[in-house]
Amino acid sequence: MTGGTTEPGSQSLEPLFYPRSIAIIGASADPARISGKPIESLKAASFAGPIYPVNPRHQEVQGLACYPHIDAVPGPVDLVLVTVPAAGVVNALEASARKGARSAVIFSSGFAEVSESGAVAQARMSEIAATSGMRILGPNCMGLFNVRHKSYVTFSSAFLRAWPKPGPIAIISQSGAFGAHCFVMARERGFGLSHWVTTGNECDVDCAEALAYMADDADTGVILAYIEGTRRGDLLIDAFARARTNRKPVILMKVGRSTVGAEAAKSHTATLAGDDAVYDAVFRDLGVHRARTFQELFDTAKACAMGKFPRRGRVGIVTISGGGGILMADAAAEIGLDVPPMPEEAQRKLKKLLPYASPRNPVDTTAQALDDMSLAQRNLEIMLEEGDFDAIACFFASVGLSPQVGPKLRDAVIAACRGHSATPVLMAMAATPELIAELAAAGIAHFEDPVAAIEAIGALVRFGRAFERKLATPPALPAPRPAPSAGMLDEAASKALLGGAGIEFLADRLVRSADEAVAAAEMLGLPVALKLLSPDIAHKTEVGGVALGLNSPDAVVRAFDEMMMRVRTERPEARITGALVAPMITGGTEMMLGVQRDPVFGPAIMVGMGGIYAEVLRDVAFRLAPFGTDDAHELIGRLRGYPVLAGARGQARLDIDGLASALSRLSLFAAANAAWLDSVDINPIIVTPKSAVAVDALVVARLVNPDQRAHQRRHIQR
Amino acid sequence: MTGGTTEPGSQSLEPLFYPRSIAIIGASADPARISGKPIESLKAASFAGPIYPVNPRHQEVQGLACYPHIDAVPGPVDLVLVTVPAAGVVNALEASARKGARSAVIFSSGFAEVSESGAVAQARMSEIAATSGMRILGPNCMGLFNVRHKSYVTFSSAFLRAWPKPGPIAIISQSGAFGAHCFVMARERGFGLSHWVTTGNECDVDCAEALAYMADDADTGVILAYIEGTRRGDLLIDAFARARTNRKPVILMKVGRSTVGAEAAKSHTATLAGDDAVYDAVFRDLGVHRARTFQELFDTAKACAMGKFPRRGRVGIVTISGGGGILMADAAAEIGLDVPPMPEEAQRKLKKLLPYASPRNPVDTTAQALDDMSLAQRNLEIMLEEGDFDAIACFFASVGLSPQVGPKLRDAVIAACRGHSATPVLMAMAATPELIAELAAAGIAHFEDPVAAIEAIGALVRFGRAFERKLATPPALPAPRPAPSAGMLDEAASKALLGGAGIEFLADRLVRSADEAVAAAEMLGLPVALKLLSPDIAHKTEVGGVALGLNSPDAVVRAFDEMMMRVRTERPEARITGALVAPMITGGTEMMLGVQRDPVFGPAIMVGMGGIYAEVLRDVAFRLAPFGTDDAHELIGRLRGYPVLAGARGQARLDIDGLASALSRLSLFAAANAAWLDSVDINPIIVTPKSAVAVDALVVARLVNPDQRAHQRRHIQR
Repeated sequence: MTGGTTEPGSQSLEPLFYPRSIAIIGASADPARISGKPIESLKAASFAGPIYPVNPRHQEVQGLACYPHIDAVPGPVDLVLVTVPAAGVVNALEASARKGARSAVIFSSGFAEVSESGAVAQARMSEIAATSGMRILGPNCMGLFNVRHKSYVTFSSAFLRAWPKPGPIAIISQSGAFGAHCFVMARERGFGLSHWVTTGNECDVDCAEALAYMADDADTGVILAYIEGTRRGDLLIDAFARARTNRKPVILMKVGRSTVGAEAAKSHTATLAGDDAVYDAVFRDLGVHRARTFQELFDTAKACAMGKFPRRGRVGIVTISGGGGILMADAAAEIGLDVPPMPEEAQRKLKKLLPYASPRNPVDTTAQALDDMSLAQRNLEIMLEEGDFDAIACFFASVGLSPQVGPKLRDAVIAACRGHSATPVLMAMAATPELIAELAAAGIAHFEDPVAAIEAIGALVRFGRAFERKLATPPALPAPRPAPSAGMLDEAASKALLGGAGIEFLADRLVRSADEAVAAAEMLGLPVALKLLSPDIAHKTEVGGVALGLNSPDAVVRAFDEMMMRVRTERPEARITGALVAPMITGGTEMMLGVQRDPVFGPAIMVGMGGIYAEVLRDVAFRLAPFGTDDAHELIGRLRGYPVLAGARGQARLDIDGLASALSRLSLFAAANAAWLDSVDINPIIVTPKSAVAVDALVVARLVNPDQRAHQRRHIQR
Repeated sequence: MTGGTTEPGSQSLEPLFYPRSIAIIGASADPARISGKPIESLKAASFAGPIYPVNPRHQEVQGLACYPHIDAVPGPVDLVLVTVPAAGVVNALEASARKGARSAVIFSSGFAEVSESGAVAQARMSEIAATSGMRILGPNCMGLFNVRHKSYVTFSSAFLRAWPKPGPIAIISQSGAFGAHCFVMARERGFGLSHWVTTGNECDVDCAEALAYMADDADTGVILAYIEGTRRGDLLIDAFARARTNRKPVILMKVGRSTVGAEAAKSHTATLAGDDAVYDAVFRDLGVHRARTFQELFDTAKACAMGKFPRRGRVGIVTISGGGGILMADAAAEIGLDVPPMPEEAQRKLKKLLPYASPRNPVDTTAQALDDMSLAQRNLEIMLEEGDFDAIACFFASVGLSPQVGPKLRDAVIAACRGHSATPVLMAMAATPELIAELAAAGIAHFEDPVAAIEAIGALVRFGRAFERKLATPPALPAPRPAPSAGMLDEAASKALLGGAGIEFLADRLVRSADEAVAAAEMLGLPVALKLLSPDIAHKTEVGGVALGLNSPDAVVRAFDEMMMRVRTERPEARITGALVAPMITGGTEMMLGVQRDPVFGPAIMVGMGGIYAEVLRDVAFRLAPFGTDDAHELIGRLRGYPVLAGARGQARLDIDGLASALSRLSLFAAANAAWLDSVDINPIIVTPKSAVAVDALVVARLVNPDQRAHQRRHIQR
């Protein structure tokens, strides 16, 4: 059933997603109860395997033989559904493991999400999973279902009013309520589904593993996910990479972007949420679409279900409303899609067909096209054949509501698309549910809002490009450096460490007296900068620890003496190693590089424009370590201030290659030393037309806990 | 029927929007034809006044007496509908004017939008309107209707399947197709409408006048508009201001934001489109909501139809899905709304009510609240009574689709809102159309997407603040200066002009020789800057016309000689007035000020962060002239780089008052001299903690056409 699964973890989820037999511990005769509903559903859906109710108080449950204990079940059990109260769950799991059950689902709540004792019980469940090999979904989840396999292991009653249609979309949600809502919304929109799974407290199986499974599942083509956070960044990254390799778009909502939101997220789950900017970097890096609204989630999924992911972004727009065409062209420009004119010859053809039309692109057929649908059809065919477009967006106002004209337009559009199946055609208009379903059946996604159709094309193109992107092999990591003692390293030590990693620093000299400072200044050439060196002072400027533009020996002496005096007065306790003398660098642009260890994903590398204005705007970009110079270039290119580097307004192009090289080397250093590295700040690094030279650096080491080494992120080929 | 109309133009639109009698020139017996459909509609809707078909070929049309000519119509005519082909329109209008008809509507197309000769005919129509006083709507429009008055003067067949419901929303569209689509979408959503009008080519009545009329119309509470551009900026501004004074939200789509879009807009209408950034400034300044999508247009209108516009943005969120609550809190934070915690005492009450709930805010009742609806009701009541919220957003997942629980929830929510009518309550959930209509009838706006509900609250609060904003009286304008000859003024003349307007410039000296330069430098104090002065050279730096940091007499002499030699070599034709010597200013932040004459709205004033990085990011803000220092402060506060001025990262706060004063003075100067002023660039103006001093300026005058003086923008009190 599933594709080429290579990860051992994935194989072991098979009994959850394709169970051949299901036992229900705590089975109830009442289908209205949580412990009765799944039995009703499995029966109603005609699940093909044996269903074993387990309950010592019944002989028979909902017409099925009931067993007093899981041991008494006559056959092997792929999936045990545990519906007993929280206090009985561990016992039930232990018994199931003894019975040799291959997987378990736990609806019950009252564990890590409510109390410390609950967390202890939940830890016991994780242990049972680890030692027995029985995979456990939950606790505090709503279960799962497989549409084609008819295994409805959930107490949600949502689907009882209509079975889900089989189709390519899998829904994965950490939250049960969110998952149920997503399912209902998908059904309301007529989407076809493969799997639906809620992971709850994730004592064993988590959303990352479920995602990886769907990435390999042959029935699944599009993955919808809702996550609040994850503990296992490496698995999540692996799942995203796997989906990308298999050309399956992942569209997800990740909440907790704001401070208020993040606080609520913590109270809602017991998950350690990583920093949101790092999540964003991961999503972007792996081509995952992060949706901000349900509308965007489902609109994107609908477009993806067409299974066409162009790599270029040339959009043809056809409409009966000139204003609608402009609206869509505006939206396309805003998200970086092209709306190129039709070729001259094709324009002539369109004009001959429909004399009142604007044939350029957006093509405005005017309402004339509705009078003779063969003209509308031919118009669209010419656009598909001769426009060299990667996608076509149509906007036909409210025609889809007209009982006379709507069906004719539907037929014309479907006929035009026949034989042009490589090009996604998206239809925006107000339309009846029947018309929408008929268009969908013909592979034409429908949108009410024309701007939503354009945005969906933007998403398709982003996926197309992500799927095509060569998987970069990061360069080999350098040998790790011995862990320094925890805390801040001083500037000289920081620079030595990073300089050893291949990052170029401004040549400077360590001096311990005014005389040594003058000698150094004369050797380096005036003017120079003088900077205090102390392991106890992070922000030198605040204690007058930086003097710039010293252009005579006198000035150097004066600055050295003043600096020492002031520091001894203001920070008498600070150890002073001496001072650094460095040449002044003129011109160029200040940038910042940095490393921040993310608790979930490991070291994240930052590049940002420097200077106070850029800092105020937070013009920064993140990527996980390690990466090569190509990825470093891509990262730098994301900065809004990038044109400053590339040579805006007649200025010379700066040494972006040098900056990219420093960035990549920093990422390799961070990955190699993830065991002890907490953070790095290189601020500024000055980029001139000829070089990218770091001026100042601060490395912070953390307390190394031997346990944590085991949790270091694996470096996956992406 | 209408409110306190004070503008003469508005009164004269009464016969269009509330006609007492209607004649149809070119009336057809066939209701399927454009010339027959309006008669069918007026009859079917039971329009109360007389309907006079006019057509020499019929005695009777659709059961009504038909007249051979408009002269033959027995009574007075408020509105003449002209449905004859383009060639006959002018004759029909002339005859109608002679008959004393008070208004006319022209469906026919084939005028300014297609050809020069069409434009001539259209100009003739404008003349007829101006000389006769008969107000003309169109040509090339779809007409208009008034729901309560039952005057359906349109050939759109959209409403024949269901009459629009009376309600507060007026729809105004320049495009007929767009207008028709908006109407259908509004009807699909169950919106109640007052008026619907399409203005087409606008030979006389334009969208601005229609907007002004709706701003005063007693039946209208919310104005939806679609515009591509306007020729009469002053009227549009007046209309927006009037709507704001009358607390009527204006929500509009204005297309043509992108280059492609703007090109299509020009080909679509014969309108002179102003620069989009200036439109944006006008909308923002006057509290107009610009929607990017139909979805946003209608979501905002739906929320506005509740008629509650809080000034503060404290949002209470209640949900049965923890994840949904986080999602909404994220969205609220993103648009600047507060999600403050419930008071402690209220939290205790909620917790007592629903022990599993998170009572802080977002309030997560969990599904527990659905088991006993009286608890859900009481929960919401406590939030309304004790939360000190300005709006409440609810998210109840898919409960609205449940035949059992949905109606109970509806009753609970409606009951809770009773007696708390001042607070807007927005309900997000998937729900049946019936439930949505019932909520709407109780004054509770429904949204499918919870994020859309939050964004709608954001719009309500923006309107509330705009409605409350004191209408600033701009300071009195200075006397206008005589128009200089067209073209660029040199730096000295530019500075003299702007200095005379009260803008402080760096003290500088005009010098004509190296010796004079040295004398000036010694008087001002070294170091100095030297800048070439020539009326023929706009970009001094490109010819080596700027030398900075000259810190000795020798350096001044060398710089002067080199500059003159280089300019004479590279630009031998350029007239050289001399050079300016100015003191060097150190520290501070570079900013830019500017004026750009907009063809539609007159002088627009710009403030922006200076420096190459800020220029690359286009961190600028616009406002129409003139304005006082309060508005100048508000404008400066919109810059993303504002924290740099306000003292970010421990830096001193800069002289924002000085900058605001310069900005306001520039706006007064621009307004006073709008007759001849084309543009001004003040770049840079250096803002230090103590002053805002302009360094360089360039004023450009335009050829003054005596005709254009008449089109100068009136300055309306806003």
